[in-house]
Amino acid sequence: MLVISTVNGARARRAELACTGRRLAFVPTMGALHEGHLALVRRGLGLADEVWASVFVNPTQFAPGEDFDRYPRDLERDRGLLEKAGATMLFAPSTKEIYPRPSATVLDVPQLADGLCGAFRPGHFQGVALVVAKLLNIVQPHIALFGAKDWQQAVVIRRMAADLCSPVRIEICPTEREEDGLARSSRNAYLAPEERRAATVLHRTLELATAAVRAGERSGAALEAKAAAEVAGEPLARLQYVAAVDPERLTPLATISNHVLVALAVHVGATRLIDNVLVEVS
Amino acid sequence: MLVISTVNGARARRAELACTGRRLAFVPTMGALHEGHLALVRRGLGLADEVWASVFVNPTQFAPGEDFDRYPRDLERDRGLLEKAGATMLFAPSTKEIYPRPSATVLDVPQLADGLCGAFRPGHFQGVALVVAKLLNIVQPHIALFGAKDWQQAVVIRRMAADLCSPVRIEICPTEREEDGLARSSRNAYLAPEERRAATVLHRTLELATAAVRAGERSGAALEAKAAAEVAGEPLARLQYVAAVDPERLTPLATISNHVLVALAVHVGATRLIDNVLVEVS
Repeated sequence: MLVISTVNGARARRAELACTGRRLAFVPTMGALHEGHLALVRRGLGLADEVWASVFVNPTQFAPGEDFDRYPRDLERDRGLLEKAGATMLFAPSTKEIYPRPSATVLDVPQLADGLCGAFRPGHFQGVALVVAKLLNIVQPHIALFGAKDWQQAVVIRRMAADLCSPVRIEICPTEREEDGLARSSRNAYLAPEERRAATVLHRTLELATAAVRAGERSGAALEAKAAAEVAGEPLARLQYVAAVDPERLTPLATISNHVLVALAVHVGATRLIDNVLVEVS
Repeated sequence: MLVISTVNGARARRAELACTGRRLAFVPTMGALHEGHLALVRRGLGLADEVWASVFVNPTQFAPGEDFDRYPRDLERDRGLLEKAGATMLFAPSTKEIYPRPSATVLDVPQLADGLCGAFRPGHFQGVALVVAKLLNIVQPHIALFGAKDWQQAVVIRRMAADLCSPVRIEICPTEREEDGLARSSRNAYLAPEERRAATVLHRTLELATAAVRAGERSGAALEAKAAAEVAGEPLARLQYVAAVDPERLTPLATISNHVLVALAVHVGATRLIDNVLVEVS
């Protein structure tokens, strides 16, 4: 697996690939890789001839006071995992390479980015949109893969790519989970053992919400109240939000008809965790 | 010359070109072509192997009450002129093709877009940035050419392309002028004969400003006052703004040292005209 750290290097490699007719899938990451990322690489191999990944802890998507400085970084470990999963190129640029100067350009999808996590992480999705736009312009993949755990991120990116006529297909892949249901996340590493146990409350809450919809619950507000009560039952957990929304538009669903996305953010100790479930009403 | 009206058609043609190694230049226009546009095509032929142009009157860059509906349209004439100038493909999409739904994505370069014309045309440069981002993603040129007459537009686009790591070089080409100095513009067609004569006041004012700098004027405010007085001497003209700014940052220059961009917008009758000059201080 090739490791490239410069924009020009990545572009040159991409130009070599252009004439082979090989289709390229791309998995952008912030490193600290886990099974969720590797599942994206494997899925990419099923959809394209070659998979590239990037590892870049993007400063512009961290709000002031968030965990940019202590975000876990281990490029050597990430490199090994990506190679084993079948990626053929790792793009691992420095901050200066991606941001030679602060961006004067603002990219936003306010109607999708302002609610849910966006309400609590000012500037987060603008930073995500910006770095993904940059990476897509550098790597120029046919397909880019994102995990469903970060659902709002994925729909923001999908809408941005469509609105900008980017020649890329955005693929949203199922959330990978630990055996007890906890969604795989680089931030799980922050959890102390008792917090790790308490963190199962997110998945448990989503299972409860799913069961409620299956049992006929059609009120978004009632669903949110049930979910909030479940989180409240876990002493180490503190709910930031839970919302029953339209999965595409991310707008609140007063009445659930076809489908509902139940999304939540929970602090477990000092660690903020998110998760969601898409429930189809048959 | 090929004429293509769909995004997919343009992408397919671009893919064919990708493997030839031929370099592509691109001239995006709103049609109603004049010598300024054709000079961009000819310049493109000097910089690349092939030049494509687009004709698309972009609704999102017109503020409410502006001239979107009456903007001159004559695709058959434009086609003939582009072919004669040496373009090999004309991309002429419908509004629905470029905006199948309203864009939820907002693209802005506020520090460059908010002043000068942007202060009087709310949303204009956001609309320009959006449509250019779309067109660049569809056409994927190596070089895109813009006229210096729309200087603010050109620097907004150049900054956006750099910030988004777009793999395109933005080339700003000199303003083409009529014999009496009036900058070529599709909107010159709106001028009645006596307005057409009065419109020379823009170029005359910029010549005066150039001479003043050459003669040692180093105060931006004094330069603006001289220019405003010159425009005030033309009864059919009404100054919207004149500004002495840094040509890259578009910020006001209290003191002129290396260079100055003098830009102005003037209403002549009901027609809004713009022009500018870049003066280097030797």
